[in-house]
Amino acid sequence: MFIGGRAVKGSVGELRGIDPSTGEALEPAYGGATPEQLDEACRLADEAFDPYRALGRDRRAAFLEAIAQNILDLGDALVERTVAESGLPRGRVEGERGRAVGQLRLFAQVVREGRYLGVRIDPAQPERTPLPRPDVRSWRIPLGPVAVFGASNFPLAFSVAGGDTASALAAGCPVVAKAHPAHPGTSELVGRAIRDAVASSGLPEGVFSLIFDSGYEIGQALVADPRIKAVGFTGSRRGGLALMKIAQERPEPIPVYAEMSSINPVILFAGALDERGPDIARAFVASLMMGAGQFCTSPGLILGLEGEGLDRFTRAAGEALAEAAAGTMLTPGIHKAYCEGVEALARHARVETVARGRAGHNHQGQAALFSTEAADFLADPRLREEVFGSSSLIVRCADEPALAQVVESLEGQLTAALHISDSDHDDVRRLLPVLERKVGRILVNGFGTGVEVNHAMVHGGPFPSTSDGRSTSVGTMAIERFLRPVAYQDLPEDLLPEPLRDGAEGAVDRLVDGRPVLAG
Amino acid sequence: MFIGGRAVKGSVGELRGIDPSTGEALEPAYGGATPEQLDEACRLADEAFDPYRALGRDRRAAFLEAIAQNILDLGDALVERTVAESGLPRGRVEGERGRAVGQLRLFAQVVREGRYLGVRIDPAQPERTPLPRPDVRSWRIPLGPVAVFGASNFPLAFSVAGGDTASALAAGCPVVAKAHPAHPGTSELVGRAIRDAVASSGLPEGVFSLIFDSGYEIGQALVADPRIKAVGFTGSRRGGLALMKIAQERPEPIPVYAEMSSINPVILFAGALDERGPDIARAFVASLMMGAGQFCTSPGLILGLEGEGLDRFTRAAGEALAEAAAGTMLTPGIHKAYCEGVEALARHARVETVARGRAGHNHQGQAALFSTEAADFLADPRLREEVFGSSSLIVRCADEPALAQVVESLEGQLTAALHISDSDHDDVRRLLPVLERKVGRILVNGFGTGVEVNHAMVHGGPFPSTSDGRSTSVGTMAIERFLRPVAYQDLPEDLLPEPLRDGAEGAVDRLVDGRPVLAG
Repeated sequence: MFIGGRAVKGSVGELRGIDPSTGEALEPAYGGATPEQLDEACRLADEAFDPYRALGRDRRAAFLEAIAQNILDLGDALVERTVAESGLPRGRVEGERGRAVGQLRLFAQVVREGRYLGVRIDPAQPERTPLPRPDVRSWRIPLGPVAVFGASNFPLAFSVAGGDTASALAAGCPVVAKAHPAHPGTSELVGRAIRDAVASSGLPEGVFSLIFDSGYEIGQALVADPRIKAVGFTGSRRGGLALMKIAQERPEPIPVYAEMSSINPVILFAGALDERGPDIARAFVASLMMGAGQFCTSPGLILGLEGEGLDRFTRAAGEALAEAAAGTMLTPGIHKAYCEGVEALARHARVETVARGRAGHNHQGQAALFSTEAADFLADPRLREEVFGSSSLIVRCADEPALAQVVESLEGQLTAALHISDSDHDDVRRLLPVLERKVGRILVNGFGTGVEVNHAMVHGGPFPSTSDGRSTSVGTMAIERFLRPVAYQDLPEDLLPEPLRDGAEGAVDRLVDGRPVLAG
Repeated sequence: MFIGGRAVKGSVGELRGIDPSTGEALEPAYGGATPEQLDEACRLADEAFDPYRALGRDRRAAFLEAIAQNILDLGDALVERTVAESGLPRGRVEGERGRAVGQLRLFAQVVREGRYLGVRIDPAQPERTPLPRPDVRSWRIPLGPVAVFGASNFPLAFSVAGGDTASALAAGCPVVAKAHPAHPGTSELVGRAIRDAVASSGLPEGVFSLIFDSGYEIGQALVADPRIKAVGFTGSRRGGLALMKIAQERPEPIPVYAEMSSINPVILFAGALDERGPDIARAFVASLMMGAGQFCTSPGLILGLEGEGLDRFTRAAGEALAEAAAGTMLTPGIHKAYCEGVEALARHARVETVARGRAGHNHQGQAALFSTEAADFLADPRLREEVFGSSSLIVRCADEPALAQVVESLEGQLTAALHISDSDHDDVRRLLPVLERKVGRILVNGFGTGVEVNHAMVHGGPFPSTSDGRSTSVGTMAIERFLRPVAYQDLPEDLLPEPLRDGAEGAVDRLVDGRPVLAG
């Protein structure tokens, strides 16, 4: 663990990475934090907050870039450890590292440009009657220290130095990261990369701490700590709800950004099914198999109108899936939950098994494709629950209204994928308003797996896909989670924060009297 | 009440406006809503949501302007009723009407310009390797029907057609307003103005409903209703916390924007005290007496360093306050709570009474100024509680660290007002980071009362001044409360919302690949 700059071995309980491809426990053993160590991490984060946020934006950007470089400099050691702890293929881990590094660098650019500060200036009008108008200027400042809970399914891009850490650090918030117990070794390596960047950038050590938790107590105490001002979490619905409850019951409630569960409906329109049903089916199976189905955006639900087109799709998907090799799942626990979820569907009286993938060994998940009718789907809420892994359910709808009703019945989702042809546009247009109310991202002729890290991306959605649909966890908009506005009225120029001054060096884009004025 | 377009008399219990200057109950009697009427209002709001948000921005802006005009057209009838129900002076009510009308018109302008949509476009790069880059575009859509709880202290600018209603309607959210029981007649008149604007604008009737509640059940059921997607509230801490709890315990939790309590510290720096202490004292008393102290931004706490300067300030403030006439308070209940709060301070062993204002009659609040030492203030959390009305407490600090410690001890606040001279800048600079963590607006050589409605204003602050410090209830930024982002990936041009299309008519300012591109 890193309590600020200090590397310490946790002394509570024992955590070990497990190689899910063999079931073998990995060396070394790690220990969880004591309450005193947690307290120390939070104290350091609180002390670091003011100096860290006061740092020039160039230095903060350089710090993010130093983290990125340090992660790359870990080289193969990091890749090998991540492969060993996650069971993910090497190519995927390398790609994910590129993504983690890329988002740190993208946030560095966002910080340099300073547009995220949301500077607004309404200049004084001393002549206004009956009362002179004061000078009012506002920008957004960081919330304070942020607790980040790493995800199991993206041990690099959504864990210790993942999206939440990158956006919180970019916003000016110190981070206390709680390592996911499934990849302690990866967490240690990445945590060291950040710790070293803190030191080499001359920042206060409390800007970053990494703690382990051998149970749930330390993570819960982290969210309850009065010095923590926001929480980023990616994981299960149960875990996210528990953290939301703790955060709300604090004397000072704080925002929790939890990404929890999503079945990501795929909607097959009639024209597309006619034109290229089997092609879509093969692409669907490829998406479903990515990362052994352990993507938050994995296509867990297929909706289409019953008929020859959907039948052809179902046959083609079944054939492709039957050939699909079982993939090693992230942890024995996730594998067990997957098997139970698949088992429940297979046994369900109103659900038919279309196909199973190839059987695997150890903790490999055998893919599964099921089918049911809209009425049965509507009648049983259990069929709307996420089965985390390569399992998906086709729902056959008698007509367009039945399909719309199934969409209406869904909870909030991260994504919806529409497969359409030119002849489907009118049908799509009717469904779009319903989808907009349900999801964070609507995509056409593709699948939600593979989330671009850019400026327009929304990786979020209404509850329960996330705890707060007003936000995204991927892309540059994510920085907004960790900011709040502050206004300054009639402050003398030399007391104003630099980006709020007139014609400042380091000016940033701003709204002046509600009109955009671009810097440089 | 207005359940959509239909005017109905509530049948549950009885509500009457009371003229607080006489204690006399006003005609007519109003009744509270039944659960069935509430259900109907929520159903209509839900049905109206999609058509209302699909409306062109010009029509939505014209609708906001029609509400403003209808309110003005109510003429003296509205002013007289508001004066009778609130005890506020006629000039203040007319000014407040101007503010309510002004903010509706300002939001109309915001809607026309469309910058609030936050359009972001990352165009496709089909040539990118290893994978082509998809086209991703995002904007912000309204959350859904919003429940608005009117405030007692601004019966026009923060009630049925106040800031929350204006920003929610501007965002594209239907509103179900719960009238404040202290001004049912005012609420009815304003509700009718909105209802008529809905009809004359040809909008679905569910865009607006107004309900009365003879107790708390209907208001609570409104927040619990699954079709309501956000809540705006201005009122007591107890009331706000109760609504937050209901909103969190829903199967689908929703955001609550509650503005609750604030004592708005005023900090007197040494140079300013030396230069013009008595002038500041008189300005302070004028601010404290505004609206009988019933402003959320009323200066309830004065901090200064002990010494001759503070003594002179205290004497001058005491003299000015002793001359101040008692003002009629909004309701008998508010008057009673004020008297109890003042009584508790007067009896407090460690608090001295500096002065009392002139005695009043009926429900008039007699102003009060108290003084205590920093150590005593720190020792007793009750001294940090808001006394809603013209009461304020001077805290004498031995030195700058003691003053900083008092500031550190404060809960979140809407405003902090600093009185400074040129010689104080270094001291101010040291305190600013602490203040930024505590408040939503920092102002210099003025008082927080009188909140400009503009683009830069932040009327919000960390908990418990509001439930969500990431937001403002005054100014154009308030529209952001009721929006969430949605992304579209690879949608054909004709399926995209118009503002997201390339070179669209009605184009709005946008970020393209992270760079601002201004419309026309």
